[in-house]
Amino acid sequence: MEIKILESVLERNNKIAAENAKTFKENGVFVLNLMASPGAGKTSFIIKTIQGMQGSFKLGVIEGDIASKVDAEKVQETGVPVIQINTGGACHLDSIMIQKALPHFDLKNLDLLIIENVGNLVCPAEFILGENLKVIILSVPEGDDKPLKYPLMFSESDVIILNKIDLLGLTDFSLERVYQNIKGLRKDIKIFEVSCKTGDGIEDWLTWLKERIEEAM
Amino acid sequence: MEIKILESVLERNNKIAAENAKTFKENGVFVLNLMASPGAGKTSFIIKTIQGMQGSFKLGVIEGDIASKVDAEKVQETGVPVIQINTGGACHLDSIMIQKALPHFDLKNLDLLIIENVGNLVCPAEFILGENLKVIILSVPEGDDKPLKYPLMFSESDVIILNKIDLLGLTDFSLERVYQNIKGLRKDIKIFEVSCKTGDGIEDWLTWLKERIEEAM
Repeated sequence: MEIKILESVLERNNKIAAENAKTFKENGVFVLNLMASPGAGKTSFIIKTIQGMQGSFKLGVIEGDIASKVDAEKVQETGVPVIQINTGGACHLDSIMIQKALPHFDLKNLDLLIIENVGNLVCPAEFILGENLKVIILSVPEGDDKPLKYPLMFSESDVIILNKIDLLGLTDFSLERVYQNIKGLRKDIKIFEVSCKTGDGIEDWLTWLKERIEEAM
Repeated sequence: MEIKILESVLERNNKIAAENAKTFKENGVFVLNLMASPGAGKTSFIIKTIQGMQGSFKLGVIEGDIASKVDAEKVQETGVPVIQINTGGACHLDSIMIQKALPHFDLKNLDLLIIENVGNLVCPAEFILGENLKVIILSVPEGDDKPLKYPLMFSESDVIILNKIDLLGLTDFSLERVYQNIKGLRKDIKIFEVSCKTGDGIEDWLTWLKERIEEAM
């Protein structure tokens, strides 16, 4: 009974996600669905990405949060258009929320839309939004065992950003173990080691992302 | 429609939670429901708590995870009885899962049962399990804004453990701001600053917890 309900929710989500994907494609917008635990550094990573791409690409951001507009305000300081979605308790964004947010953007004038999902390693994994890439941030202080404990999230993602590598050595996080744990789930995943604090590794991510956007255009 | 279904799920959960609470009381078991983001240090905190209480109290642990038994194996090394619940995708434990796990313990022979919930700052907040205390761990690298972004979780909790204080100064986490953010939600909350790595603050937590258990006996 419960499973049937969930399936019909997911079916509807997938249908609207396909409509969103079509809208994005028609308008030439490349879309990232950015997911992570609370506090892994999603907003800092978005700001670093904006700073590295502003000028050559036109960006927009959707900020998903249960409550508050702390993140939206931070991103807004970069000058890019930001829409805040407050889910009012819901533990993930869904494609319907995204569809409702889209009329607030001038899509013809966007190259890249970054969607910051609710901080949660569980529920967002099941709800596609119409994105080109699912990007997961895993931060060093969270530990190298997270891919084992949240396998759906990590096996569904196209890119994993290992953030806060400036804290390597201050925790017992092992790069070797995390690569092993990720590759055990999915071999073809792209992994970047970055620190949004020091800027390390951001350049490699930006170069790779720009190539993906240009390929899709 | 969806809301009605959720309500009936929550009603059933509350009913079974009350049954669990009765069972715990009859058997003299004090119960902690431990919640946090992935990687905040729940398992390390449980191990520190066990080490500080073994000898004077008889402990048991329920480990809730979506997948894997990584945490259960770590806790098992302390010698206390551990039951692993794999939720198979569900983003929180519920009272029914706990009820099913209880026959695996010798409850008459337990003083304290620690339940490690699924790593998630959203969904577990809505599902009581029959516990005496809800304990939230917030770790320094996650940032001091988390109470603003996950208000239900923080306002529902009785105790907040600020973990990884050994990383204060290496991040922009401010103790002053986090206290402000927490007290804005609920004034009577108990807060402990600890580091499971260095052991700082653990003694204060143990002293306070022992008093609560003795009060309840």
